[in-house]
Amino acid sequence: MVFLSGAPAPEEQALESNEGPLVRLHPRKLSQPFAKLSKASIRKDLVHQCQEKWRNATLDHFSYGDPTEKGEIATFPQRYFVCTNQWQRQAADGSTGPIFFYLGNEADVLLYLNNTGLMWESAPEFGAMLVFAEHRYYGESVPYGKNVRKHMRYLGAEQALADYAELIWEIKEEYDAHDSAVIGFGGSYGGMLASWMRLKYPHALDGAIAGSAPIWNFFGEVPPFDPGSFAKGVTYDASELAGSAPACADNVRDTWDLLRIYGGDDAGRKFLATGLGLCPSVPLSSEDDVAYLREWLGAAFDMMAMGNFPYPSAYITNGHGELPAFPVRVACTFVASDNLSDSELLAAMGKAVGVFYNHTGEAACLDPWAGTDPDSDHDGDWWDFQWCAEMLMPFSKDGVTDMFWSDPFNLEAAVAACQERWGVTPRPLWANTEWGGRRISAGSNIVFSNGLLDPWHA
Amino acid sequence: MVFLSGAPAPEEQALESNEGPLVRLHPRKLSQPFAKLSKASIRKDLVHQCQEKWRNATLDHFSYGDPTEKGEIATFPQRYFVCTNQWQRQAADGSTGPIFFYLGNEADVLLYLNNTGLMWESAPEFGAMLVFAEHRYYGESVPYGKNVRKHMRYLGAEQALADYAELIWEIKEEYDAHDSAVIGFGGSYGGMLASWMRLKYPHALDGAIAGSAPIWNFFGEVPPFDPGSFAKGVTYDASELAGSAPACADNVRDTWDLLRIYGGDDAGRKFLATGLGLCPSVPLSSEDDVAYLREWLGAAFDMMAMGNFPYPSAYITNGHGELPAFPVRVACTFVASDNLSDSELLAAMGKAVGVFYNHTGEAACLDPWAGTDPDSDHDGDWWDFQWCAEMLMPFSKDGVTDMFWSDPFNLEAAVAACQERWGVTPRPLWANTEWGGRRISAGSNIVFSNGLLDPWHA
Repeated sequence: MVFLSGAPAPEEQALESNEGPLVRLHPRKLSQPFAKLSKASIRKDLVHQCQEKWRNATLDHFSYGDPTEKGEIATFPQRYFVCTNQWQRQAADGSTGPIFFYLGNEADVLLYLNNTGLMWESAPEFGAMLVFAEHRYYGESVPYGKNVRKHMRYLGAEQALADYAELIWEIKEEYDAHDSAVIGFGGSYGGMLASWMRLKYPHALDGAIAGSAPIWNFFGEVPPFDPGSFAKGVTYDASELAGSAPACADNVRDTWDLLRIYGGDDAGRKFLATGLGLCPSVPLSSEDDVAYLREWLGAAFDMMAMGNFPYPSAYITNGHGELPAFPVRVACTFVASDNLSDSELLAAMGKAVGVFYNHTGEAACLDPWAGTDPDSDHDGDWWDFQWCAEMLMPFSKDGVTDMFWSDPFNLEAAVAACQERWGVTPRPLWANTEWGGRRISAGSNIVFSNGLLDPWHA
Repeated sequence: MVFLSGAPAPEEQALESNEGPLVRLHPRKLSQPFAKLSKASIRKDLVHQCQEKWRNATLDHFSYGDPTEKGEIATFPQRYFVCTNQWQRQAADGSTGPIFFYLGNEADVLLYLNNTGLMWESAPEFGAMLVFAEHRYYGESVPYGKNVRKHMRYLGAEQALADYAELIWEIKEEYDAHDSAVIGFGGSYGGMLASWMRLKYPHALDGAIAGSAPIWNFFGEVPPFDPGSFAKGVTYDASELAGSAPACADNVRDTWDLLRIYGGDDAGRKFLATGLGLCPSVPLSSEDDVAYLREWLGAAFDMMAMGNFPYPSAYITNGHGELPAFPVRVACTFVASDNLSDSELLAAMGKAVGVFYNHTGEAACLDPWAGTDPDSDHDGDWWDFQWCAEMLMPFSKDGVTDMFWSDPFNLEAAVAACQERWGVTPRPLWANTEWGGRRISAGSNIVFSNGLLDPWHA
């Protein structure tokens, strides 16, 4: 889905006030209610303009002759869509239309086919062929099928870019399009891939349009990257400057105090549950549960900020119904008043996060544990692997410059969690060494689009 | 050593005239008499200006969490030399001297430290720090020690570049040199690495000086690469245009006819052995042996052409004594006459290849099998692995446009040989897909130096 889920925060958290930690939690997964693409949301009018195709992708591009493979090259089936309706095979001047190539990121590629309007809208003008390539391990391009969890090691950005480089060559061969310019498109992690591919494979990609690509959120930047920038960005979206109610951020921040004050005993927790409008079945029976609840409430604002588009969109919900335009503003309308009583603030907060969790308006109550299914293989989990293995982005909150709580990034804890969850030891400097972070002045033909409302813009 | 040895030619050859094959040989290794760096040749005056240092390099940069590693990151000891005598830590204007970084290639890094005069000569003027980094698996930077042959899979150019990117970062940290420009140097395969690193890691390498780097000798070029260009280049060096005796190339070519004519029976083979001045112990007892002999004779010209410098040099011999200036010209002086009798031509050819094989002048006779030691791990073998695994360069000869014999490149045979020797299946298009071949117009600050006398210049 969206890759905030890579942060260790949801799984290893302290319920702290600014005065210090109250509770050290056991790791627990945050619910991911919209982690799977809604099949019902797929726009058949777009898909029907494309051919679904498959190729055999090399599993490991960078090491050779695994003894268990007995001299064969291990491959996996990779899916992609080619849409040639608008493609100008040969213009009057002999030129060939370009190829617009979406570099799939951490979800089913149909999500991007559905939501990358810029490609569909520009195709007629440029006479462009559209290609949507699925990222290895996501959607239906999964090596080892149901056993994939035991074989995660070949999931990585470098491997994915090599897949795309080979695919671009194959398409040029198949369509006799060696003269076509190839423009890469991608958003979020896909935007990182697009910009990195233009840097690393300029012979394959003639240009890149990279949306909301946080390519320098890594260790090793000089000067260092501010790990609090994401939380500050979310808070900015809840501010008057960004069009939200002036009291919004303060009210959100005050909610964490209520959780701390009331979270210590059963009566208080019942007050919290009732006030927020949680379902009667919700087991809010410990401080651990309250700490989880806090994560879940905060995550709603993270998600709405990442989907804070000026138009209604189902992108952030993976097609499970639309969020309204400017969802953070809408959420903030519920927590807009000064001088709310404790119960009023809780009720307001319940409605605010309901803009995300209950965007259909159909749920009678909220269940923070809904969608928590430890057995299902969610794409969000795969991103967590990538975060651990190759793209350790530090995240922190402070509750002062942002509307959350004090939660400094703990590298040691993050490393331990990655080892436990995936058996991989993060190399904190790797992403900066491999991709260059801010030092991309040698690159050309890369357009970065970063909305000021996007918390990744920092 | 030099990476012609990657060609399958020496191991799977047909003794052919232009009329067709005579014999299909069993694979056999060509001797590599100077494959190991001569320790005696190391220039202590240079080495003493440097510190020998070691680092732990990540064994596999691009896949994560090998289950056999139990969450640890497997590493190997990588050697490098840092020479700071001339380094301007801080100039009057506050600037810091650059780092000249040699990207080690397929040999002991001391060979390059010894022979890269350009770096040593330029260091004082630029106030440069010199770094010579050893390529993984070569010299003393060998993972798994004596068991390395069972663990070849992490030998590759991408892995090596990632090593260098990490090392550059570490050096900048250690010497507080984040403001220093880094210029990469490399020749031959090292020149390929230097130019590719500037393309793929422009944030780590600010420029590259790439000597004799055959970066487009791969399948997949549009228009296709001419696999005969190397043989033509060697032949050019033996031509009047390149300063050699006018009759040289024709005489060399005529030698192969003699091998075919006399190679079929014992009496003829004795005539060949005596004529060429081979040692009495040499077992020239079959057509197979004669085919091997032909390879060995031809290889002398390949090697001399690659080392056809205008000054005496021990580079091509790995420090085992110097070749004269323009060794091909010197060799050609022995085969300069027209109308040589068969025995005269053989004797002349023996002297010509002796410029390389007997450059010390100390051997009383020639032994084509000297230095053939199937048990020793020669660096040349490792290059053959890389050739098979990731950089399949086609080579061919035709005996018409070059002075050799008809030997078209046989992809199927090359693939089969790679599978047998290394258990790897070549991906012929990979190098072009990964590195871009000729399509490097997006690159900047890369100086390619290619002498016209260098057979790699084509």
